[in-house]
Formats: sequence, C-alpha cells, structure tokens
Amino acid sequence: MIKVSFFYPSKPGSRFIADYYVDVHMPLVIKRLGSALKAASAEIGISGAMPGTPPPNAALASFTFESVEAFTAAVMPHYMELQSDIPNYTDIEPIVQISDLRI
Amino acid sequence: MIKVSFFYPSKPGSRFIADYYVDVHMPLVIKRLGSALKAASAEIGISGAMPGTPPPNAALASFTFESVEAFTAAVMPHYMELQSDIPNYTDIEPIVQISDLRI
Repeated sequence: MIKVSFFYPSKPGSRFIADYYVDVHMPLVIKRLGSALKAASAEIGISGAMPGTPPPNAALASFTFESVEAFTAAVMPHYMELQSDIPNYTDIEPIVQISDLRI
Repeated sequence: MIKVSFFYPSKPGSRFIADYYVDVHMPLVIKRLGSALKAASAEIGISGAMPGTPPPNAALASFTFESVEAFTAAVMPHYMELQSDIPNYTDIEPIVQISDLRI
C-alpha cells in the first residue's frame, strides 16, 4: 500500500480555512477518488512538539491506495477540479509526498 | 483525538535506515506508549508528487491519542529511551507536530 501525503507549511500571514478544508474540500476529494481510496485522514495543526509553539504545518492530509498506479488512475480524471478548489481554503501551495506504507 | 506527526526531512548525504526504523524503532515506540496509543502509522518516502522526484521526507510517522495530555503522560516515562534510539537509524533530527485529527 502507498500513502500520498499533503503538507500545508505554516507561513506568516498565510490563510487556511480549516472548516472549509475539513467540511467541503476533503469530502469532495474522498468522493472523487472513489473505491480506489482505501483510507484518508486530515488533521489541523495545533502546535509543534511543545505546547504553545507554532505547528510546522497548518494542516496535513493523507490518502492510502493499493499502488502509485491506482492513485494516478483515480486522481487524473478529477485533478483540475480538485486543484481549482484549493484557493477556496488556502493560499499555501501544498507539498506532496508519495510513501511506502509500512505500518 | 489528536495526532502526533514525525517528519524526517530528506537532506543530501543524510542517513536513514528504513528497516531498523520499521522493524525495531516503531515496535519499541508502540510497545512503550501502551494502551494510550490509539493508532500508529509509519511510511518510507518514495517520491514527491511526480515519480522520480525526491521525497520531501525520508520517512513520516503518526501516533493517535485521545488528547495532548494522554500523549504527554504516555511518552514522558519513556522519552529518554526512545530519543536515544534515534541515532541507531538516522542522523536527521525529526520535526514534530501535534494536530487535531478531524478526519
């Protein structure tokens, strides 16, 4: 299984509307990815390791698929629609990583 | 529920022994955190968004707890032991984030 992770690095003055992300964007992504998506999570940054320190990322999300090919096939038909929803909740450009899910 | 995420940023020339991390370090962490730990995952970086590009992080891990207080109480008695195992698999200093698990 592979995991596709999205990071939204915290930047001074940047905008991130957590409720839109959790209540609108993520449900849209999950719906569009369909049965190829095996699991999904989304979290909103609270702090760094120490309480009261700023979180390195405003938000994180991850999506689990059987393979890189399964991810690509699932996302490609909806890429433009999903990408064009990003400005509705943030001006942070997400960093994307594909990983081998080991645990 | 909260999620504690660990990022190991990829750096040129850095060392990360994935098998030790997955087969030794993570099981030790999971064992020490005990029943306070509700879920855990660990993944090894394959690429960025595009196949063949370097992953932003050599590895990622996340740990789910009921609350920040539950995490702190669970990790504190084992902090030194777990911290001192890190040089056995990497010279990358992990970045830690505490987040509010929304999905």
